[in-house]
Amino acid sequence: MLYPHVSVDCVLLGVNEEKLCVLLVERADSPGDQIDYKLPGSLIYENEDLDDAAYRVLKESTGISKVQLKQFRCFGSPSRTQNKEDVLWLENASKLKIGRIVTVAYLALCKISKRKNLSPKYKSAQWVPVNELPKLPFDHNEIVAAATSEIRQWIEIEPSIVFEYLPSRFTLYELRRTYETIFGKAFDIRNFHKKIASLAYVVPTNEMQEGVAHRAARYYRFDRAIYKKRSIVNKK
Amino acid sequence: MLYPHVSVDCVLLGVNEEKLCVLLVERADSPGDQIDYKLPGSLIYENEDLDDAAYRVLKESTGISKVQLKQFRCFGSPSRTQNKEDVLWLENASKLKIGRIVTVAYLALCKISKRKNLSPKYKSAQWVPVNELPKLPFDHNEIVAAATSEIRQWIEIEPSIVFEYLPSRFTLYELRRTYETIFGKAFDIRNFHKKIASLAYVVPTNEMQEGVAHRAARYYRFDRAIYKKRSIVNKK
Repeated sequence: MLYPHVSVDCVLLGVNEEKLCVLLVERADSPGDQIDYKLPGSLIYENEDLDDAAYRVLKESTGISKVQLKQFRCFGSPSRTQNKEDVLWLENASKLKIGRIVTVAYLALCKISKRKNLSPKYKSAQWVPVNELPKLPFDHNEIVAAATSEIRQWIEIEPSIVFEYLPSRFTLYELRRTYETIFGKAFDIRNFHKKIASLAYVVPTNEMQEGVAHRAARYYRFDRAIYKKRSIVNKK
Repeated sequence: MLYPHVSVDCVLLGVNEEKLCVLLVERADSPGDQIDYKLPGSLIYENEDLDDAAYRVLKESTGISKVQLKQFRCFGSPSRTQNKEDVLWLENASKLKIGRIVTVAYLALCKISKRKNLSPKYKSAQWVPVNELPKLPFDHNEIVAAATSEIRQWIEIEPSIVFEYLPSRFTLYELRRTYETIFGKAFDIRNFHKKIASLAYVVPTNEMQEGVAHRAARYYRFDRAIYKKRSIVNKK
């Protein structure tokens, strides 16, 4: 019997040039002729905690450390290792006999603006639009798809995630475009504005855009105190 | 090197006699003199999917199958197997040499009323108040504590979970007591009523309690359509 191996994989999502992107890294000594990409991931070390393994591999392969990773799902189907080329590649890279791999997937939505310029040391890391992914090894395409659904679900029940992602002052256009990019679909402008107007926690400010060619738009801000009042549990 | 084993553990939470309870099963051939309890759990089979393993072990050990389990976290600290007695017990039960175990924990909130009378075949399964747990093997106390926090967090961002847990008509007393039981604390009655009154999706009906000794209370209902309007993403 081959015992399962345990790995971690990190899915970092972010908006770049109006596209929802995922951070991938080059696979060293990839089995084909071309460079191919994978999620930043690694087998866990013998005495390593799962969270530690996730932060370690992210740092090692991308240089990124200032991001809060959250476990979102464990992928453990025996079919994850059905592609013999992938298994052979991992056996060469790890010097281990690989039967089955259960991977713990981590997720974070992060601002690419700050991290877009990945250190040159990690030039093998790239932000790739989730809609333009090549075929990735193992079930990494499936993991990215699941992560994309997951982040949309988080946002649907916890809109503050989007507001924290935006600058502290934003226009309704910026808000809508962020939603459209993350959800991968167009929102009806009038319905969207009506919806936002009904949300007490999206507060118009007195500031308007300056130096724009089109009609200056109003800036809005997110009011966390009002937002929190939605909660039945929170007293305020 | 001892490869990690992979297991699943199921945390079923439910409200029983105004206490938040967790479903535990007797540990067969437990190392001590007394009967002791654990979460329903099992090592995964060689070719078994994680979800399948969770449903299998729940059914095998409690007879329960009609519940929707959701992965909520993977526990993989190397210290999970620091108690030698637990490891020895598992090695005897599984006939395997155990080094480290990464477990995928599943969670469900379920109505005990329907399932309280566990089939006599599974008399070793018991609902135990989470505040009155004995010392459980491995890190099962920690897993139950994490599951309790998790369900509270789910409810805080998604109150519909509580309303789906209640009967279709409920009094404000029943609603508050359910919150108090799950959150393990008292809510200020006036504040709670004020909060509920501000929520458009908790709708008073024309029905009143009947045949009660105290002043008859009004029944309320949960309006899913209004609730869904909270969402920015949902068009309606």
